Amino acid sequence: MSTPEFPEEEHEQVAGNGLLHRRLFLSQGAALLSAGSLGLMTARPAAAQALDPWLLTPGLALSGYGERSPFEADVARTVLPVAGTTGSGASRTPLESLEGIITPNGLFFERHHAGIPEIDPERHQLLIHGLVERPLVFSMEALSRYPMESRIQFLECSGNSRPNLASTPPQESCGFLHGTVSCSEWTGIPLSILLDEAGVSSEASWLLAEGADAAAMTRSVPLAKAMDDALIALYQNGERIRPSNGYPMRLFLPGYEGNACIKWLRRIKLTSGPQMTREETSKYTDLQRDGRSLQFTFDMDVKSVITSPSFGLALNGPGLYQISGIAWTGAGRIRRVEVSADGGQTWAEAALSDPVLPKALTRFRMAWRYDGGAATIVSRATDEAGNVQPLRSDFMAANGPQVSYHNNSTQAWAIDSDGAVSNVYV
Amino acid sequence: MSTPEFPEEEHEQVAGNGLLHRRLFLSQGAALLSAGSLGLMTARPAAAQALDPWLLTPGLALSGYGERSPFEADVARTVLPVAGTTGSGASRTPLESLEGIITPNGLFFERHHAGIPEIDPERHQLLIHGLVERPLVFSMEALSRYPMESRIQFLECSGNSRPNLASTPPQESCGFLHGTVSCSEWTGIPLSILLDEAGVSSEASWLLAEGADAAAMTRSVPLAKAMDDALIALYQNGERIRPSNGYPMRLFLPGYEGNACIKWLRRIKLTSGPQMTREETSKYTDLQRDGRSLQFTFDMDVKSVITSPSFGLALNGPGLYQISGIAWTGAGRIRRVEVSADGGQTWAEAALSDPVLPKALTRFRMAWRYDGGAATIVSRATDEAGNVQPLRSDFMAANGPQVSYHNNSTQAWAIDSDGAVSNVYV
Repeated sequence: MSTPEFPEEEHEQVAGNGLLHRRLFLSQGAALLSAGSLGLMTARPAAAQALDPWLLTPGLALSGYGERSPFEADVARTVLPVAGTTGSGASRTPLESLEGIITPNGLFFERHHAGIPEIDPERHQLLIHGLVERPLVFSMEALSRYPMESRIQFLECSGNSRPNLASTPPQESCGFLHGTVSCSEWTGIPLSILLDEAGVSSEASWLLAEGADAAAMTRSVPLAKAMDDALIALYQNGERIRPSNGYPMRLFLPGYEGNACIKWLRRIKLTSGPQMTREETSKYTDLQRDGRSLQFTFDMDVKSVITSPSFGLALNGPGLYQISGIAWTGAGRIRRVEVSADGGQTWAEAALSDPVLPKALTRFRMAWRYDGGAATIVSRATDEAGNVQPLRSDFMAANGPQVSYHNNSTQAWAIDSDGAVSNVYV
Repeated sequence: MSTPEFPEEEHEQVAGNGLLHRRLFLSQGAALLSAGSLGLMTARPAAAQALDPWLLTPGLALSGYGERSPFEADVARTVLPVAGTTGSGASRTPLESLEGIITPNGLFFERHHAGIPEIDPERHQLLIHGLVERPLVFSMEALSRYPMESRIQFLECSGNSRPNLASTPPQESCGFLHGTVSCSEWTGIPLSILLDEAGVSSEASWLLAEGADAAAMTRSVPLAKAMDDALIALYQNGERIRPSNGYPMRLFLPGYEGNACIKWLRRIKLTSGPQMTREETSKYTDLQRDGRSLQFTFDMDVKSVITSPSFGLALNGPGLYQISGIAWTGAGRIRRVEVSADGGQTWAEAALSDPVLPKALTRFRMAWRYDGGAATIVSRATDEAGNVQPLRSDFMAANGPQVSYHNNSTQAWAIDSDGAVSNVYV
């Protein structure tokens, strides 16, 4: 079996500083990519294999619920409690250590305002009241009989990427900078079914959702969103949703900022307008240059970030590398991700890994022939609605410097001639 | 906002014993499904909500790697060690407790032949040798630079569903009966790229794959499969593959029986034919009525099972229930799943939840108006190649009773007038 025919010019770069055509990562791309002709050859000639100890002794026993390798213990969320509070803070997903689009439940980002409640599902109930014909209470057992839907979708805190609003680029990991975005398969009951059962009054146009944590986290949500694609999520990646993500149930609003997706959901009250809670007045508003603030900016914008190579990872000399990253948008599907290896002077289109799902993370990849010198890599996403992720410089010019939420601007990584990666602004 | 118009006849059954049209679960189905008019109403009229203790005290702190709720501790794999061995056995996924198509890593099924090795990834290497031009050794660091692919795909042990080959139906859970199938997002390097780099000799037509466990688990695989869609899998559901699934790498052969997907992969030797290892001669062969055995029956067949309601779950009186289950096939995508509530006399098509991916679990759901009497529910899958899952009676007539592997026949659950669910043969 010989290497398939593949004209040499197909290996040529499609943008500056060594970016190669995305077809190398598309369907059947592997068959076209002759590693030898690309000068990859990072393997070494074979020698005799060692008889490692694990070949010589029986291993560990079966278990009811499995654990990671102890060699992976360093792959952890960045834990950032808010000083002076009890249980307030966030932990961020280590994006630089992950691949694909699914975030494992143990590494899904968290944001809490009074710690993680340990709720007994036998006692917990969901109340639907306010502007309804029939106020109703749902036990977990009652909910288990309702029709469910499953969807793979991202969740992002609107405060994500705030570190990059600083005037000088923080030298921190991709997860530290951008790790309050994660993606799961969510399964639950369409909220519209439960609202239909309660009978929505014609005066209702918003709802108030309240959590059962000690912060009683409370947000106002337009009724139209509830009737569109809101889910009472009970399962995350197949198993029951975890306490840090709202056990036994959370409100999941696809494409909306995470804070509105109330965890430990205990109450939905239908109202004729927003209720102006703390979290939509003093927090989670967008301060403008003129001192006014925008409220209820729920939609998360089109965005992408290169997760590898990124800060903390080092390139080991010239040769072929894979550039890998994630893109997402609250507006639906990602249409295109472009990558630059020369700091934004030239761009080439990356390969998107199937499946490309609406309001889900999309994995993009690009082959890069690194020449061993200085380079600046950056990615830029476009969604199916035509929204284009702004360069950081453009975003700050349009929104800065008082902006605090909804930073969807580009992330650039500089690689120096030693292969070390740093955070830079472009 | 009033209940959308929805003609009463749309709620009428489409097959015997209360099965309703699948449009109730399709896109926009939620908007059509007026829970009240279906007689669902499992909620209770609202009363004052209790001030549960978790509303009154701050909760638990953030963590680097999260855990499940202690209230979910009973959701565990069925652990079945092989008596008289050290580390041989299987643990089965609790399918009856899961939803959607992703199996969380802690509940993914395991099958070991000498326990789970704790491999140091810094020491582990992959050797490619035999009928190649350049025998090569790959360290984990070397592999990290190669192009990767991500795919959501199932893995099934060919011994799955063996309990139902017994002459009387075992009264066991869905996971006990069928739980050596699971589904993950796998990310890794197409094996074809590494073989291209080593240079495949024209005489090579098979390969031998060997694991680094104390059983040195070894299987022969056709080279054509390796060049088609085989993956050296490094990540499972975003994080590094776990020790129970082959850390730091496993051979993943989409749609092939699990045993051939060698875990803890240390060696691939290209050969001119199969090597007749223990696991493809005395095991993992299909004994025929005439005493001969079929070898190398890698492909997993079209199959489905209702996970809810199932044994161990009880129906709480008449009313609307959701029938939920999984379907899969090694031949590509699931085209159709039919459900019967009268033991196979009449069938109706279930709704398939997006995304329907090739060689992945597919979640199906169906609305069922249970009248409170006796019923027998069963599902039957058809794949895009036109293969139809056989009824158990037909499968046993064609293959029984000496058959031991590749039981893809239907699972029927009987519901008695108390709502109790039992395993029955149809």
